[in-house]
Amino acid sequence: MKDNLNIVPFVSVENMMRLVLERGIENCMAEIAQYLEEDFRRWPLFDKTPRVASHSREGVIELMPTSDGIDYGFKYVNGHPKNMKEGLQTVTAFGLLASVETGYPVLLSEMTVLTALRTAATSAVATKYLARKDSKTLALIGNGAQSEFQALALKKICGIDAVRLYDIDPAATEKCAANLADSGLTIIKCDTPQGAIEGADVVTTCTADKKYSTILTDNMVGAGIHINAIGGDCPGKTELHKDILLRSDIYVEYPEQTRIEGDIQQLDDDYPVKELWQVLTGEIDGRSDDKAITLFDGVGFAIEDFSALRWLRDALKSSDKYQDLDMIADPDDPRDLFGMVRREAERLADS
Amino acid sequence: MKDNLNIVPFVSVENMMRLVLERGIENCMAEIAQYLEEDFRRWPLFDKTPRVASHSREGVIELMPTSDGIDYGFKYVNGHPKNMKEGLQTVTAFGLLASVETGYPVLLSEMTVLTALRTAATSAVATKYLARKDSKTLALIGNGAQSEFQALALKKICGIDAVRLYDIDPAATEKCAANLADSGLTIIKCDTPQGAIEGADVVTTCTADKKYSTILTDNMVGAGIHINAIGGDCPGKTELHKDILLRSDIYVEYPEQTRIEGDIQQLDDDYPVKELWQVLTGEIDGRSDDKAITLFDGVGFAIEDFSALRWLRDALKSSDKYQDLDMIADPDDPRDLFGMVRREAERLADS
Repeated sequence: MKDNLNIVPFVSVENMMRLVLERGIENCMAEIAQYLEEDFRRWPLFDKTPRVASHSREGVIELMPTSDGIDYGFKYVNGHPKNMKEGLQTVTAFGLLASVETGYPVLLSEMTVLTALRTAATSAVATKYLARKDSKTLALIGNGAQSEFQALALKKICGIDAVRLYDIDPAATEKCAANLADSGLTIIKCDTPQGAIEGADVVTTCTADKKYSTILTDNMVGAGIHINAIGGDCPGKTELHKDILLRSDIYVEYPEQTRIEGDIQQLDDDYPVKELWQVLTGEIDGRSDDKAITLFDGVGFAIEDFSALRWLRDALKSSDKYQDLDMIADPDDPRDLFGMVRREAERLADS
Repeated sequence: MKDNLNIVPFVSVENMMRLVLERGIENCMAEIAQYLEEDFRRWPLFDKTPRVASHSREGVIELMPTSDGIDYGFKYVNGHPKNMKEGLQTVTAFGLLASVETGYPVLLSEMTVLTALRTAATSAVATKYLARKDSKTLALIGNGAQSEFQALALKKICGIDAVRLYDIDPAATEKCAANLADSGLTIIKCDTPQGAIEGADVVTTCTADKKYSTILTDNMVGAGIHINAIGGDCPGKTELHKDILLRSDIYVEYPEQTRIEGDIQQLDDDYPVKELWQVLTGEIDGRSDDKAITLFDGVGFAIEDFSALRWLRDALKSSDKYQDLDMIADPDDPRDLFGMVRREAERLADS
């Protein structure tokens, strides 16, 4: 047990890609969805706090910690919309899992790829519990970095078999269509948001502009649809016209955070919204009937990253896709940190 | 500039020890003290927030973020007093520096050794500005992991030439004395705190018990002394009798945090204390005369870790004591994260 507690397994971007390919992207998202469901069902026991944000003119850097009393996890994530023009990622992330018992880190990982997987898996869990059971067609508004993951997670977990694509930039739609060409999904490229949403049972909006946008207007949204609005995820960034919100049953992760960051920032602070985890525990009902419009206003919450890191730790038990990091000082005598440095000098002198 | 932004230099415990030995421990602390002084002088421009703590029955895990508008830094640190009995470190830590402009991490490092260096360097800066200029003798109450660093930092930066040691456990005193045997300091091992403090110009208390202790009582503290009280650093953990506080001019790092964690948690919330950084900028006076008792109630603040990480980043410019971590996803097209994973599959198939 004590052996090598000072060594922390680290999953690089390359190892994360190889791990995901080894298990299959769709399988990984289905597995992560199971961890998400487990953690949603025990939501009240988590230590919850809104993310700790450091805002600047160009973007934001955030720390998202949480704990279930056994493990502690946090994610570092930035959001810099202007990065894309410079050929950089808008969002990069890494995360850590630690033992509450000892405070020692037990896993460090890239989380850019992992966040893409957990975000799509979260939308799929919301869709599974809120969309009409016969949903087959997904409209994807915004065909950027998250889009393919959404399509495959909803295929694998919710039985979606057709995807209608729209992006303000046709090149993004072409990229998404090419990436999904051999997925088994029927792909329909659309020239307008209206065209994309036509006949869709589920809509996911995942656009990237940091501003108040109206990706969907009220007349576009018909009865019975389920919407995952996941691109509106920070103050000043929304995707849906307010009138859609007023016609929908709204589900969120953590109201305290979503009221600041989600599409519901357009509504009054006491506008009634439901918490997704309560649908999973059965404390509240999900969709009322086939005519209702359900909206998952997803902004991403620390517990989802925690679930993803728990999945990763377990996945590594049968994989070699990590490297060992000498991250924690481990003197023979905990009170003799100085002696540890001295003995390193002696070792260097001897060698 | 854009090249290899996805690769983050990482300083392991072994590399940190080798870097410190390469430059000399005392030199490193003197250099870090310069970075600390720079950052103390521009204290108001930092983004300051009390640490984000996750408490459990066994200890605490904390995130300590800060930013100067150019760089962003945070430290992960735990405090688990019961760890020592299990042969583990009470405190372990790692830290990160990132670019505010892009949100990309630029340096990841172990911070158990680095925190020991910056804590001692901070005490030395406080001592330099608050102790009597002719101070030569240091009493070290608590001879654990921080003690040798305190002795050497105060020797190098403040001209201390003799150290009087006391610990409730004589084995700790023997360990500290042995580690300092070839330091050039005169070492006096003492059987009581009273004996240790006799004739001392400066006292550093750095004990580890998580409880209200009275390491120093009022009658032990004579006129003209400077005290660094650095072991009382969390709620419920103090070292000095309240009457000593009432006779002292008290200097702190960040009052909002120190009133919760420091020895001054024993005083009323509005008891007047001074901020150390203002002594460095000249906004307030330090020691009034040779009879005053000055007290630095140090609990450790995020800006000090930031200074230490800045020092490390600059030190690495002339050292190879780091390794490259593939930590940030870097697709050719930022919107094509999925394609990056696909292309990895093609590479694996080709190889």
